[in-house]
Formats: sequence, structure tokens, C-alpha cells
Amino acid sequence: MSSIFTKIINGEIPSYKITENDDFFVFLDINPNAKGHTLVVPKKEVNKLFDLEEDLYNALMSYARKIAIAIEKAVPCKRVGMAVIGLEVPHVHVHLIPLQAMEDIQFNKKVKLESDEFVAIAKAISSNL
Amino acid sequence: MSSIFTKIINGEIPSYKITENDDFFVFLDINPNAKGHTLVVPKKEVNKLFDLEEDLYNALMSYARKIAIAIEKAVPCKRVGMAVIGLEVPHVHVHLIPLQAMEDIQFNKKVKLESDEFVAIAKAISSNL
Repeated sequence: MSSIFTKIINGEIPSYKITENDDFFVFLDINPNAKGHTLVVPKKEVNKLFDLEEDLYNALMSYARKIAIAIEKAVPCKRVGMAVIGLEVPHVHVHLIPLQAMEDIQFNKKVKLESDEFVAIAKAISSNL
Repeated sequence: MSSIFTKIINGEIPSYKITENDDFFVFLDINPNAKGHTLVVPKKEVNKLFDLEEDLYNALMSYARKIAIAIEKAVPCKRVGMAVIGLEVPHVHVHLIPLQAMEDIQFNKKVKLESDEFVAIAKAISSNL
């Protein structure tokens, strides 16, 4: 069965998309830790980050850097934090999270955003790419 | 003033070192979330991950992958998680953490290890490189 991220990539589940290229799909986390919480996902469905083939892993990290720099320009924050955990969805995803405090990357606190806020944030980030 | 990591890299503060190369220094976190919690640090003292020059950032991520694969071989875990936060020490450091559960990467729970355990873990990881 396809992962939830593959369904998002294929458009079967809607998402607030920021950008994509041949290998990666970038969209806002629908249950964000903080405003601007973004996921960078390889289109190839692989469970664990360090099981990605070396070239694809390196490309993912390089691409995540470009996205993070756009997030830093679009969303006021002290810095953008990065986390790859993956215990819940077995499809590699890089969390990029605008941080004000440690709790923004501890995955306990969640923020509630309206649809128009998601749309505006996705647009602000993509316009900085 | 040098960061605590620069002092570790220069040997002014002792550490449980795993390995190093020209650009990076790798050692065990002294206050680990989980057994095998490792830090990968660029020798160049830069505050924020995404302020690293592109080549050095890419090299750091590529090197972290090699270290993570060695950790996965040396330390029983479901997977190795990665986090870059940096709100406390203004010197880039990649956390590589053997995960059994989400709490292992939330930086609330800490594990207490004896010196000989740190030595054994560092040796086990470096022998898998």
C-alpha cells in the first residue's frame, strides 16, 4: 500500500504544496509544530533515511538546504531546525521547522492554522525559492 | 571566545571521540538522550547550519550519513534519527541518535552512562566505520 506521502505526491490527498522537482516533493506539515513547518519528501518511497542510496540522500540534503533558506526568508524565526525521525510514517521525510524555542522541535506542541494561512505561508516560502 | 565544541576539537576539553577528518569532529554527546547519541561537528565554528557554505554543508551531511550507518551497526535501535537545532550552543552540530521511541529525540529524557560505557560505545561505532 502507498504511504500517505506517496498519496500526497500523487495528488490523491490534497496538500499545501511549496514546490517539487523530479526527485522530491515539498509541502507544509498539516499538523505543524510551528508556522512554516515544512516536509521535504523523496518521491521514491523508502522507509529509513540512511537506507536511501547515497546519491539520493545527498541530493535530498542539498535540496532541503535550499528550502530551509527560503523558509528563513519567509517566516520570522531564530533559525530553521531540521529533524528526521520517521517512527510514524515509513517514508523518508525531512522536517524543516522555524524555531523560536526548543519546544518547536519536540513534537508535543502543535499550532492550529486556518486554510488561508497555510496557503499564504506556502506561497511566501515558494516565492523565496 | 571559542565554543565548547571548539575546545573539545582542540583537546582543551576531553571527549569520547569516535573519529575526525580535516573538516569534521565526531564524538559522543556527554549528556545523551540514548546510548550511542553522537554529535558531528564542523571544525569551522559557524553558528547556524544553513549559514554554512554550500560545499561544507553538503560534506557535513554526507559525512553524517557514514557515521549514522556505523551507529546503526554498533548500537541496537529501530533507526538512527537526525536533528539539528542549535539554540543552546552556537556552533553547528548534527545529533545522530539511536531511536527506540519518539522520546529519544525530544531532548527531555537523558540516560546516565559510566565512563567505561562511553569508551566502549565510541569504540564500537568507530570500529564500524
